[in-house]
Amino acid sequence: MLGETIAAVRPRDAVAEQNARARLDVMTKPPGSLGLLEDVAAQLAGTAGRCPAPLPGPAAVAVFAGDHGVHAQGVTPWPQEVTGQMVANIVAGGAVVNAFAAQLGAEVLVVDVGVSAPLQPAPGLLGRRVRSGTADLSAGPAMTVEEARRAVEVGIEVAGTLAAGHGCLVTGDMGIANTTASAALVCVFTGADARRATGRGTGIDDTMLARKVQVVRQAAGRVPDRPATPEQALAALAEVGGLEHAALAGFVIGAAAARVPVVLDGIIAGSAALVAAALCPAALEHALAGHTSAEPGHALALQALGLQPLLALDLRLGEGTGALLAWPLVAAAARALRDVATFDSAGVTGK
Amino acid sequence: MLGETIAAVRPRDAVAEQNARARLDVMTKPPGSLGLLEDVAAQLAGTAGRCPAPLPGPAAVAVFAGDHGVHAQGVTPWPQEVTGQMVANIVAGGAVVNAFAAQLGAEVLVVDVGVSAPLQPAPGLLGRRVRSGTADLSAGPAMTVEEARRAVEVGIEVAGTLAAGHGCLVTGDMGIANTTASAALVCVFTGADARRATGRGTGIDDTMLARKVQVVRQAAGRVPDRPATPEQALAALAEVGGLEHAALAGFVIGAAAARVPVVLDGIIAGSAALVAAALCPAALEHALAGHTSAEPGHALALQALGLQPLLALDLRLGEGTGALLAWPLVAAAARALRDVATFDSAGVTGK
Repeated sequence: MLGETIAAVRPRDAVAEQNARARLDVMTKPPGSLGLLEDVAAQLAGTAGRCPAPLPGPAAVAVFAGDHGVHAQGVTPWPQEVTGQMVANIVAGGAVVNAFAAQLGAEVLVVDVGVSAPLQPAPGLLGRRVRSGTADLSAGPAMTVEEARRAVEVGIEVAGTLAAGHGCLVTGDMGIANTTASAALVCVFTGADARRATGRGTGIDDTMLARKVQVVRQAAGRVPDRPATPEQALAALAEVGGLEHAALAGFVIGAAAARVPVVLDGIIAGSAALVAAALCPAALEHALAGHTSAEPGHALALQALGLQPLLALDLRLGEGTGALLAWPLVAAAARALRDVATFDSAGVTGK
Repeated sequence: MLGETIAAVRPRDAVAEQNARARLDVMTKPPGSLGLLEDVAAQLAGTAGRCPAPLPGPAAVAVFAGDHGVHAQGVTPWPQEVTGQMVANIVAGGAVVNAFAAQLGAEVLVVDVGVSAPLQPAPGLLGRRVRSGTADLSAGPAMTVEEARRAVEVGIEVAGTLAAGHGCLVTGDMGIANTTASAALVCVFTGADARRATGRGTGIDDTMLARKVQVVRQAAGRVPDRPATPEQALAALAEVGGLEHAALAGFVIGAAAARVPVVLDGIIAGSAALVAAALCPAALEHALAGHTSAEPGHALALQALGLQPLLALDLRLGEGTGALLAWPLVAAAARALRDVATFDSAGVTGK
């Protein structure tokens, strides 16, 4: 399934994208005056394969949830049980991701790809647990390569399902200690030093940060830098990643295969996108960076991916919140490309 | 009317704002993790005088349109007639501001405060022309102080009308050559040199930019720096401003008097807000900077106002487009403050 999906991904349509650029230049506005949104509009046309692209709505955010064995190393002040509690909170509609989604008319789907605690079945919660949390990545592989592949395929499945009814997919995540695995992935896939890639996550003090950097450095050191083949990427993911990272990598590839734009959230999605790019470089052509977070490794990941973030609000929450906030910008870009009059059609004199 | 409105403006409510900060700290998210949106949520509570604040919707964008006698100096490649043509385009729903407003469910009202050309009456167009374009600000005062006051009062009137049915006001503008007047206002109100405050507007070459800098420097040089009283502010506005700048200054004050948040667009609104701040410092407590534009004087204005922009997309269009794009962020901040569960209510363990 992974191989087939990778094979199904195509680059953006260059003709549709050129048509979008040409149209942007004759719309009733100074050429280039929509800045970054002109790139977004053109990209959407390239992903859709037609100009103008359809409006990228409604949006659906998939919140992939997993636990992390590295929690035992004291890399976060939050108890591990919070992952399951927050899943319950999201399913009940009480989290920030729910508020943002309600404001934007987006759907929220939580996917249990690896939570430790038992979860009550509920509408809006999809049970796809590959294992109950990863092993401690500081001591050895976080999961087997086969588990990593299965989690990637969960993401592909979810992307395919959601793409059928939604014009835009949004990445979300929940998992106490998942910024540690993210930092390790950033180190491995970009070659960055652990000190630059590791941040304070949900808010840790200097002592805990020093421990976290040490854990990240040690784990990343076990993996050869810059995996270049799908096999190397899966091996690196299994060694230092998380189950939600694996699922998010699959989600990005699945969205690309379905030719639906996918908006990336913060460091968890950014590090997962590095894995996706190594598995399937063309997949990233259909992704947009929703924001750049306060977590330092995120900017490193975006730089390596060549993605320009739409927002910089100093967010460090995850759940998909930053990507959801960017969705109206993506929708506005598409709407402008579709609806704005041209100088000719509106009878406006050019310069 | 101006004096009464200024007298009606109150600072934000400190208690409501403290309550918002306290609530943000117990919501199910790491403290501070919503970054800049936490400040927005608290500010909205302070403006509303209660926590949580009501949702800031629907939004209404007022596009104040005016022409500029300085157009004769060759500061823009666009013919002056484009102002009236673009007003007709906006009224017909064909401009970018219309596409963005449609995407966000916002209302667009165009206010003719000083267009040169005759305009056909139409729904969505409010005729409040103070004069048919300003005089050439490079040669003498752009308008009389009395005209400036009347244009300010147009903005106050429009804010009061729109505030009755909308939870958020958004500034918009249309006026060929209006970045020249904006740059002059920025120089006068911040003390910046013309070279730093003057930009390429809708897109001009080096020769035209040099001429524009010269015009701005000469005009700003006629006015004492940093007007500190309402009388000085009105005099400076009349000397080097535009009719839409005057109306926008009134709009910001009128929104504050009605205790409705107002989202500022680009350099035109930013320079007008400098005037508003000199007329009524407390008014700016209720304003939000929607974005920072590509126009260099805009960042200078925001810095002087102490406003942190929500977006930085390299936009340079005006019309209210950048502020409209920021509105969903403001609404999301309000929605989160109102709807998100607390650690206690959701049964989530703290750190």
